[in-house]
Amino acid sequence: MKKLINAPEDVLVESLKGVALAHPELSVDLENHVITRATPKTQGKVAIVSGGGSGHEPLHGGFVGTGMLDAAVAGEVFTSPTPDRVQVATKAVDRGAGVLHIVKNYTGDVLNFEMAAELASMEGIEVGSVTVDDDVAVQDSLYTAGRRGVGLTVLLEKIVGAAAEEGRDLAAVVELAKKVNGQGRSMGMALTSCTVPAAGKPTFDLPDDQMEIGIGIHGEPGRHREPLAPASEIARQLVEPILGDIDAAGPAIVMLNGMGATPLIELYLMYGEVAAILEKSGVQIARNLVGNYITSLDMAGCSVTVLKADDELLRLWDAPVNTPGLRWGA
Amino acid sequence: MKKLINAPEDVLVESLKGVALAHPELSVDLENHVITRATPKTQGKVAIVSGGGSGHEPLHGGFVGTGMLDAAVAGEVFTSPTPDRVQVATKAVDRGAGVLHIVKNYTGDVLNFEMAAELASMEGIEVGSVTVDDDVAVQDSLYTAGRRGVGLTVLLEKIVGAAAEEGRDLAAVVELAKKVNGQGRSMGMALTSCTVPAAGKPTFDLPDDQMEIGIGIHGEPGRHREPLAPASEIARQLVEPILGDIDAAGPAIVMLNGMGATPLIELYLMYGEVAAILEKSGVQIARNLVGNYITSLDMAGCSVTVLKADDELLRLWDAPVNTPGLRWGA
Repeated sequence: MKKLINAPEDVLVESLKGVALAHPELSVDLENHVITRATPKTQGKVAIVSGGGSGHEPLHGGFVGTGMLDAAVAGEVFTSPTPDRVQVATKAVDRGAGVLHIVKNYTGDVLNFEMAAELASMEGIEVGSVTVDDDVAVQDSLYTAGRRGVGLTVLLEKIVGAAAEEGRDLAAVVELAKKVNGQGRSMGMALTSCTVPAAGKPTFDLPDDQMEIGIGIHGEPGRHREPLAPASEIARQLVEPILGDIDAAGPAIVMLNGMGATPLIELYLMYGEVAAILEKSGVQIARNLVGNYITSLDMAGCSVTVLKADDELLRLWDAPVNTPGLRWGA
Repeated sequence: MKKLINAPEDVLVESLKGVALAHPELSVDLENHVITRATPKTQGKVAIVSGGGSGHEPLHGGFVGTGMLDAAVAGEVFTSPTPDRVQVATKAVDRGAGVLHIVKNYTGDVLNFEMAAELASMEGIEVGSVTVDDDVAVQDSLYTAGRRGVGLTVLLEKIVGAAAEEGRDLAAVVELAKKVNGQGRSMGMALTSCTVPAAGKPTFDLPDDQMEIGIGIHGEPGRHREPLAPASEIARQLVEPILGDIDAAGPAIVMLNGMGATPLIELYLMYGEVAAILEKSGVQIARNLVGNYITSLDMAGCSVTVLKADDELLRLWDAPVNTPGLRWGA
């Protein structure tokens, strides 16, 4: 295993220490592994909390800041954070208007966020919740009942964060979150495995001439393996299942996401291929993101997310955001 | 070779096509491989052009935009762009106040930018130039007489871009660029080789238990190889040669840069280690960047850049910038 780390068991806390030093605009609770804004939002606005296993950076900690998340709870690598820590985050950011939990659909995350919501409500904090399940690759998976939550989470956190900043109430924010989840789909692929530090070896073996289509962000099996294909063919295999699952004709926000170890020169090339297929299918790409936004440690590969977008979603997308991982208009 | 590409010979142009589709705020000349702002800066301001071999993205094309570059010239992967293309870029962005060429110190780049400057001056365009040579690892290298130009280029493009936006004249912009180059130093390391698409195999072999200290951004040999060490020891080996070469006590801008295939969780961990050593040595980190800014295709590893910064440099650093790769305050 070749990684820039000290002891595998210290990776998360030492990385959080680096985040704290690099970003004075964030506040990092090293005991509970919770990242919040150093300057909380004003009283009376809905707060947004997300979290999950680490190893997907910049998601979620890199999306804390004005216009996006109020707090992120970082579990150990690929491991759900415990309910008490989610509750700590929830309590820390509540401004009296309730808190939205954004939960990727993995069994551990779903259970632990549910339990945290109960703990919080016992303390008088109103909690709403959305479960993101955008991955069209497989119906159930290693850690999942139902579809996995992947790239759409990034887009949802941005859009819902903007709505909360505008002052919408919790019911309206929850409704918006569910609308976004209903209108977005993702599909990913891997060229290589990732290596979890504590495991010390690749999560799976993928021969030098093979790729895996439909991979999960923890290296969970996808749809199938096949010989490495040209980018144009890979783009087709990512876009077709998405368009087969949702009518995405019309304006859309599209993300071409890197899995962590794939350089930008390849991600832009893939974006060109994906955009060509989408436009030919009647999808008008109104906004886009190209880069590493929801990663899988050192996995090489990419994913495509398509979110059908009306004027409301585009306006919220364009609203100012100021986080380490996403920043514009502020 | 596992890459998201079609034919190796098409990588550059196909990636530029993706850039053009993703960034309507940029204008991409697919014939000359030149990226400019879609909306040029106002007449009477100095323009800034940089460029070099591709494979270091987001450098340079990702730094075109308000507050930074006016144009980037993209050579083939790890190959200098030809003088006529640098001239095309220079001519395209000149607003009557002259053009600064920012050139990383590689023999091909230096020669081709010099020739382009002569061609431009024959057409009545005044060209100034700065050669960046911040890499303390080796004195001469595979493609270099003198030190290599690496990470400092990113910081220099930002600071000089801000000065040009303010309306400083060419002589003042050149002077500032030379000041920045004199006050910054970098040092890098690799965990793995990179693979040039046209070569189809890794540039060098690095055994599974070894790392290379002092690596160049094209996989050029560094100072030495040794067994893989903990992050704290790697940080020491990157920071000490920098501090041995320049008195960096006082305020500084520090970049912890990823080589392309190293995930953010490791980069933040490394930043924590590097920051601790620097602060202990009297360097006050006033600003920082952590992420992939000047990469080496799919190489795993990182580099450290330290730029001694006075109030003027910090003010220019904080000025608004709006590019795909660097964006704040705009």
